[in-house]
Amino acid sequence: MKYKIGVCQFKPKFLDTTYNLEQMKSLVGNIQADLIVLPELATSGYFFNSKKQLITISEDAYQGQTADLFLKLAKKNKTSYVVGFSEKFKDKIFNSSMLVNPNGDIHVYRKTHLFYEETKWFNPGNTGFKVFNAKDNVKVGMMICFDWIFPESARSLALNGAQIIAHPANLVLPWCQQAMITRSLENRVFSITANRIGNEQNDSQKLTFTGLSQMLNTKGEVLKKLNKTEESVHLVSIDPEKADDKSITEYNNAFGDRRTEYYNL
Amino acid sequence: MKYKIGVCQFKPKFLDTTYNLEQMKSLVGNIQADLIVLPELATSGYFFNSKKQLITISEDAYQGQTADLFLKLAKKNKTSYVVGFSEKFKDKIFNSSMLVNPNGDIHVYRKTHLFYEETKWFNPGNTGFKVFNAKDNVKVGMMICFDWIFPESARSLALNGAQIIAHPANLVLPWCQQAMITRSLENRVFSITANRIGNEQNDSQKLTFTGLSQMLNTKGEVLKKLNKTEESVHLVSIDPEKADDKSITEYNNAFGDRRTEYYNL
Repeated sequence: MKYKIGVCQFKPKFLDTTYNLEQMKSLVGNIQADLIVLPELATSGYFFNSKKQLITISEDAYQGQTADLFLKLAKKNKTSYVVGFSEKFKDKIFNSSMLVNPNGDIHVYRKTHLFYEETKWFNPGNTGFKVFNAKDNVKVGMMICFDWIFPESARSLALNGAQIIAHPANLVLPWCQQAMITRSLENRVFSITANRIGNEQNDSQKLTFTGLSQMLNTKGEVLKKLNKTEESVHLVSIDPEKADDKSITEYNNAFGDRRTEYYNL
Repeated sequence: MKYKIGVCQFKPKFLDTTYNLEQMKSLVGNIQADLIVLPELATSGYFFNSKKQLITISEDAYQGQTADLFLKLAKKNKTSYVVGFSEKFKDKIFNSSMLVNPNGDIHVYRKTHLFYEETKWFNPGNTGFKVFNAKDNVKVGMMICFDWIFPESARSLALNGAQIIAHPANLVLPWCQQAMITRSLENRVFSITANRIGNEQNDSQKLTFTGLSQMLNTKGEVLKKLNKTEESVHLVSIDPEKADDKSITEYNNAFGDRRTEYYNL
């Protein structure tokens, strides 16, 4: 099965949702693919100073402007999208991503492991690591940014059947891109890390986002890696069903060889 | 606390236990350190053709010639050693490693995840991922070679309190040295991968061992990496107690932030 996946790297403007949605539209709006992943908090920017500020740009997962844009694009381009946004749900705010499908379905993941000052503004995610059908019933699992450092995130998604891990990110630490090679390899899954670029400054500190978005195959080999500064979209063609084969050698299987009775987790 | 750790890389001769023990003695016998790790199946070589052949070089963990040598060296040099050997226990043969301490204690780990044709000759390990005191009560966990590809191995050792992961190996796949960076980083532990070099051929196939033994700190930074061909011992000085600090940022902790209720493992 041939499946065209893509990664979109760009520089959101802090709190400028109108610009960010327009910019995403101009980057991916005219591209036909099967699945395109965009960064974490792509609609809003990242480095908040207060919960009040955060609330102003948070939106409903199904009726907000992010959903609105990507539902239109999904129908028009027959493409599934994964994109990060700040989700308002009742009295809670989550650092979430949505999978938006051409048939109008929206699936939501809420970041399980919050990073740094996110812990001051966001509620910890409560969805767990579910796997959803994207276009053509390809199995997609979402995790967001810092979830990468916990091997349990990608492992749970893979054991739940993910063929592709969609990984929106706003990375500031230097380790993730390399570690995702291990995540793809140990779980025999494709992964798409869509990182942002640029800087953001809050009242106390400046953050620099590392770019270097990447797409990896089930052996952790780099299919495409972007640079640290480009705003762009890149596509590669994969066969998602290769992720269903967990064999490592003729004697070894990444899942079948697990010996859970000896793990302390 | 200052603690001198070391890695010994060499080329065992297949089935030539006398040579291998002599060679290990000549490499590490006159070095004072706190902990030195040697390769998997260092006494015997690796690529067996039959169970019968394997039995000829298998030995008791506590009374065999490997224990004999390292008990002597441990007392003489006041050094703990981790070394791989083929363990005969009742009617079973395990791909094991022993931790030998200056006080005469021996602790055994039996490889949990067997690789390739090992599955034909060895029994799967039944010890799990226990952590033991090495010299000066430093907490050492053992895993062997292919255990690396299962994140549960290093994770279990770290959650069980390991400060240092001692990792004897006979690596033939190209991925481990890089992946161990992720293992040290995600678990905030030191790791010592002691790999062998050279080739071995059995009736059907030739294996090339990759060398590149390495010692990593708790951020996955390389303290020392050997080349692909050297037979040598290298030492570095660490503070094992740094592994007790699992903080990643002032808001994040590698263990405290785990959300086990959302994992499917």
